[in-house]
Amino acid sequence: MAKKVDILVIGGGPAGIIAATTARQNYPEKSVTLMRDKEKGIVPCGIPYMISSLSDPTENSVSYSGLEKNNIKNVVDRAIELDPENKKINTKSGEVYNYEKLILAIGSRPIQPPIEGLEKDGVFSVRKDMDYLKKMVSEIHEANDVLVLGGGFIGVEFADELSRQEDLNVHLVEMLPDLLANSFDPECSELVEERLKQNDVNVLTNTQVEKLTGQKRVEKAHLRNGETIDIDCAILGIGSLPNTELATNAGIDLGRGRGIWVDEYMRTSEKDIFAVGDCAGKRHFITGKDAPVMLASTATAEARIAGANLYKLKVLRENKGTIAIYSTYVDGLVLGSAGLTENTAKEENFEVIVGKADVVDKHPSNLPGTNKLHIKLVFSEESQSLVGGQVAGGMSCGELINSIGIAIQQNISLTELETLQMATHPYCTAPPTKYPLVIAAQNAAKET
Amino acid sequence: MAKKVDILVIGGGPAGIIAATTARQNYPEKSVTLMRDKEKGIVPCGIPYMISSLSDPTENSVSYSGLEKNNIKNVVDRAIELDPENKKINTKSGEVYNYEKLILAIGSRPIQPPIEGLEKDGVFSVRKDMDYLKKMVSEIHEANDVLVLGGGFIGVEFADELSRQEDLNVHLVEMLPDLLANSFDPECSELVEERLKQNDVNVLTNTQVEKLTGQKRVEKAHLRNGETIDIDCAILGIGSLPNTELATNAGIDLGRGRGIWVDEYMRTSEKDIFAVGDCAGKRHFITGKDAPVMLASTATAEARIAGANLYKLKVLRENKGTIAIYSTYVDGLVLGSAGLTENTAKEENFEVIVGKADVVDKHPSNLPGTNKLHIKLVFSEESQSLVGGQVAGGMSCGELINSIGIAIQQNISLTELETLQMATHPYCTAPPTKYPLVIAAQNAAKET
Repeated sequence: MAKKVDILVIGGGPAGIIAATTARQNYPEKSVTLMRDKEKGIVPCGIPYMISSLSDPTENSVSYSGLEKNNIKNVVDRAIELDPENKKINTKSGEVYNYEKLILAIGSRPIQPPIEGLEKDGVFSVRKDMDYLKKMVSEIHEANDVLVLGGGFIGVEFADELSRQEDLNVHLVEMLPDLLANSFDPECSELVEERLKQNDVNVLTNTQVEKLTGQKRVEKAHLRNGETIDIDCAILGIGSLPNTELATNAGIDLGRGRGIWVDEYMRTSEKDIFAVGDCAGKRHFITGKDAPVMLASTATAEARIAGANLYKLKVLRENKGTIAIYSTYVDGLVLGSAGLTENTAKEENFEVIVGKADVVDKHPSNLPGTNKLHIKLVFSEESQSLVGGQVAGGMSCGELINSIGIAIQQNISLTELETLQMATHPYCTAPPTKYPLVIAAQNAAKET
Repeated sequence: MAKKVDILVIGGGPAGIIAATTARQNYPEKSVTLMRDKEKGIVPCGIPYMISSLSDPTENSVSYSGLEKNNIKNVVDRAIELDPENKKINTKSGEVYNYEKLILAIGSRPIQPPIEGLEKDGVFSVRKDMDYLKKMVSEIHEANDVLVLGGGFIGVEFADELSRQEDLNVHLVEMLPDLLANSFDPECSELVEERLKQNDVNVLTNTQVEKLTGQKRVEKAHLRNGETIDIDCAILGIGSLPNTELATNAGIDLGRGRGIWVDEYMRTSEKDIFAVGDCAGKRHFITGKDAPVMLASTATAEARIAGANLYKLKVLRENKGTIAIYSTYVDGLVLGSAGLTENTAKEENFEVIVGKADVVDKHPSNLPGTNKLHIKLVFSEESQSLVGGQVAGGMSCGELINSIGIAIQQNISLTELETLQMATHPYCTAPPTKYPLVIAAQNAAKET
């Protein structure tokens, strides 16, 4: 007999958890069930840190115990068929669920690039699966040479963590001329490359891998330039594709991009079905174009919007598009990016003005632990509003990029940034005379 | 013969320097002169750190060499008389300056509380004077018992720095029941008190000093409760009063508060005379009331407004009032405050809703170096806009408070914060599921 639930959330990642808890908070009278297909959950952004920073890979687990406490039923099963007309889900274990409202938070899967030999032992993609990742970590701990394929966030973070393993040779291969090229202009990418090279990572940009060879186990990476690298492990960090089959098989629309089409309130083309997180299509906050941003932070923001708007629209809680805000860490160097880079803005045909600053993150700068801090702000010349920012420096950049993110989401103007009031302190920030956001804005103003 | 200058800035602190450089940037055709009364400059917020953190007090110097490079003339002299009608300044050295535009950045002086015995040797106030401060530091390095009077920012920072001196007993006396009571609600003040006590600081709240006694040198502090403390140094951190004599003697208006009255563009009651920084009156961004906020960060924001608006008003560059944004550091514990606290908001008769959260600053929380992070957000119930915030945690709080500051200055709403997009990273921030600004906003929403 079919199980009746008011709100059914499918997916046990950050998007699913937050959608369920937000629904619980907003609709206390409704029953909420979360269905996930794996017993053990993973903190997705913590995956690289399972290698060296965490003493044991299982420390990167997600606990689901909070859900039960919150009166959210949680079941391990897999949705295999969705029938929107009858508001029904069939599961792998043979159960049938009837829902009032359905939230799809079914995530993404790693892209498998068209490279020969990916099926060999020792080749891993970044799957959110604890048993698989434990195997990966233990093989890495035995390896001498690891190849990381892809110089985006995940590839760079893996290379950094791997470089902390003694007696391990780390090779990072990126097709484009720069690392992190989607989110940073070259001056920041160069800082990352430099830091990795200081830690003996063999960084190969402008380089493509043609095939992986070996007996049962991977032994060699063959590059397009004819060279080979001896390896005993490879990690694919090429990116991910949204999981959409469950939706498309049920006749739900895809957008122009890759994910499930959603409106401002995360509603799909089918009444009473919402989609959030990696599986949902994304539009860019500035350009309105499809933007394949797959981040837990974006996913949770979407989940909060869906969870609040399930039964009635609360007008202001709408998804205005992703600002593509990221931060990353390379051996103490922290980088953040939000909105458009100078390069991407110009590709979009924006007339931009740009302001940079090179300051320090403590003052006076002879205080112990002072780091250099580079900042770049990108403004639309016509509207004088902030469309993007990048920072590179010490730990303070982790939250500094969020100041930039709030400023972009609030359409802050150049003059508002020039006269910004901020807290400064010797141990915590640049001096008030050289606060990075203000100085970069002033330098942009000089360009007008 | 009188010297003719286009723009004359009086004062060599952060307000004066930034007013001069902003004027230079905005009016390249004008001559700019900065007059300061001391040869050597001091980084004001760095003063406590001259005791332990910096290896030599002179490392806390301000360099004026950048001014000359920027084509700003800089002279050491003291303005003793101002004649607004003839646009003329007389100086201590007997010079006369004629100006087109004058910016007063003449700072503040430490409050001398009505306590007997302040004139004794070993008693210091926090003067921005290198020779005086070098003497203070060298006496402290010889001392056994130091009394710090006043539990505001400067007193707390002094007590923290002093606690790093071996074999030194540190006594911190505050009249009110809580430390930092103007900027924090009790739960944050308690964290500060706890941390200081862990480092063996003798924290005495609810306590008043009646008199200091001794022969030539201070020897004892007598408390109102009859107890005495043996001391050989005392530091007065009671606060400061604006320097206004030069202005009032010239007939320039004071405001209802303590400083020189200024309008939204930092103009005084006299045409062509501006005032910025500690000497200028302040209004609160939220309440519009007089707010005696004396901070280099506020001062520089004002200086940028004055410097830009000297010859023509650039409408958007206006001073909307101070949000009273601060950060401080106590042995690794970083605290930030912006806008109104819950207590001050209620005193102002605001109907407020409050959201708190206790999270961590890395994720998963077993990553090395993870700190607890407490946050509190205060919203106006009627308008649902953010009127204040407080944070306490690790180093990331230094910039996190600036995110809150931008949000207040941009009148961000509760729902905008609930669905905020932010960058999260294992090493740099809380997890996306528990980002402090979002969780505190959600918890506030539960109250409505």
